[in-house]
Amino acid sequence: MKHLSDIFNNALKENCAAKSPFNLYEPVDYLLQLGGKRVRPILCLIGCELFDDEVKKAIPPAMGIEYFHNFTLAHDDIMDAAPLRRGKPTMHTRYDLNTAILSGDVMFAKAYQFMCQVENSVLVPVLQTFNQTAIEVCEGQQYDMDFETRDVTDVRVEDYLKMIELKTAVLIAASLKIGALVGGASPSEAQRLYEFGRLAGIAFQLQDDILDTYGNAENFGKQVGGDIIQNKKTYLLLEAVNMGSEKIRQKIVENLSLQYDNNEEKVAEMKNIFNSLKVKEKAEDLMESYYDKACKHLDATKLSISKKQSLLSFIDYLMKRKR
Amino acid sequence: MKHLSDIFNNALKENCAAKSPFNLYEPVDYLLQLGGKRVRPILCLIGCELFDDEVKKAIPPAMGIEYFHNFTLAHDDIMDAAPLRRGKPTMHTRYDLNTAILSGDVMFAKAYQFMCQVENSVLVPVLQTFNQTAIEVCEGQQYDMDFETRDVTDVRVEDYLKMIELKTAVLIAASLKIGALVGGASPSEAQRLYEFGRLAGIAFQLQDDILDTYGNAENFGKQVGGDIIQNKKTYLLLEAVNMGSEKIRQKIVENLSLQYDNNEEKVAEMKNIFNSLKVKEKAEDLMESYYDKACKHLDATKLSISKKQSLLSFIDYLMKRKR
Repeated sequence: MKHLSDIFNNALKENCAAKSPFNLYEPVDYLLQLGGKRVRPILCLIGCELFDDEVKKAIPPAMGIEYFHNFTLAHDDIMDAAPLRRGKPTMHTRYDLNTAILSGDVMFAKAYQFMCQVENSVLVPVLQTFNQTAIEVCEGQQYDMDFETRDVTDVRVEDYLKMIELKTAVLIAASLKIGALVGGASPSEAQRLYEFGRLAGIAFQLQDDILDTYGNAENFGKQVGGDIIQNKKTYLLLEAVNMGSEKIRQKIVENLSLQYDNNEEKVAEMKNIFNSLKVKEKAEDLMESYYDKACKHLDATKLSISKKQSLLSFIDYLMKRKR
Repeated sequence: MKHLSDIFNNALKENCAAKSPFNLYEPVDYLLQLGGKRVRPILCLIGCELFDDEVKKAIPPAMGIEYFHNFTLAHDDIMDAAPLRRGKPTMHTRYDLNTAILSGDVMFAKAYQFMCQVENSVLVPVLQTFNQTAIEVCEGQQYDMDFETRDVTDVRVEDYLKMIELKTAVLIAASLKIGALVGGASPSEAQRLYEFGRLAGIAFQLQDDILDTYGNAENFGKQVGGDIIQNKKTYLLLEAVNMGSEKIRQKIVENLSLQYDNNEEKVAEMKNIFNSLKVKEKAEDLMESYYDKACKHLDATKLSISKKQSLLSFIDYLMKRKR
């Protein structure tokens, strides 16, 4: 997908010109230029390309999606008190709280301005999709924050799956669908791509949970074991609580409250519990089942095999799957 | 405008139903139910009623405007570290910082969802107006924050007028214009109402500056002298710096940095300076000139005299003008 990535990054660079007021827009450019894989805008361009060779018309909504995504990053980083993003200071760390709030807000407004540049004939379904997605992403972040204060024995696996659907998967889904609509897909074909993206997005997050604990440092890119160290309520942890005996549940709750001198020890302890319950295998099965369901929606479209293959190969690249 | 106020408040009440997640939406209802005069949504309904008796179709965009306005209040109150709004705790005071950020964000997203409910035939101009306005309101807030850290001798009166235009006047203008578009106004008539609202909005803010220092406590509703006590760079202060001799400018700068034991003394000192320079009269002249320019745009519309009169009487009520 190198050509789509280049198209998008060039468009983004052209758009990052100095604007006034400087203190509002310079932080926007900073965040947008931190990089990243540009997963969502590329999915938007792919969605368009599946139905129309003229992929350029999907650049404005792709920009809108990337602006929206970065707006959520700016605000989420405040809420999570995260000092770093992609190895660089987050917006509120590099500038200050007020900047991260207001420059985030203006990115959201700009996102809509880009989104409204789609052709008139698809404006209504594009905006309906985008509105609903924006609301759901906020809801997902709220559920995520609510989980942090709830007891680990109180959060159900299905609550977690709903949370990652809202926080992560629906924007993946909307990116594909909006691109497809712009490319001229019928409403039902566009909805198939939405469902594909939603289910693949959940699979993607489950894969991320697995790799956070079981990946190797080289190809994961984040600190392996980070979720365990931070007591994050991931699928692995919640399923362990769900499947473990009363004794194991108590052991887990105890581990979460212990102050370990050594993080490696904590990670090893928790992995032992996960291994004894075969939680990794359960996660992989669930991930595969979401992935299979996703593929059924893609299969049901009238797209050619080579088109389907090009989308799947991007998803596999994201999920670090070998085929 | 009692009937429009009732229509809007009823629609708002119906919309405030418990939704999940509770921690996201309950604070939204709290803020929306703090009350206020509902100036902007009423202007949207008036804008529609000027062109079409069926005012109900302007309820969704009026809701969108009120949601947007309250989103900006939630975030501005964080940035200004304001403990109270309308005598009640602000969102970040009653809940916490993260709530005020995220519940604010979802109000912005909901604002667009409401806005997209206008008829298809006016969707494009309505969204163009709303997008531009949302961006400008963020820019206005940034200029306002920038002013706070700048030296009072460094901020020009024209910078201040640009700031209040962006922060306050353009949303007044957009409210009227969007209502007019929904009511079936031609693009040029709708633009006339935008210009009327923009210029009247600037006049309104100048009036607010005057009343903050020269009003009486009964009909002003805020603490008289508050701007002086807080060293706010209002028109009165900036014009005094502009017009005063070098000696007076030094005196003003000195007053701003002094720690007064007694706020009344500080207010009296500054008012003496303002009075010696006839700053109040200058502010009144400028306000009247904006108001007159606004009225010229209203006059240029093809609306009947009674329609024009009904809009003007609402503006006069807001500006506490006697006719």
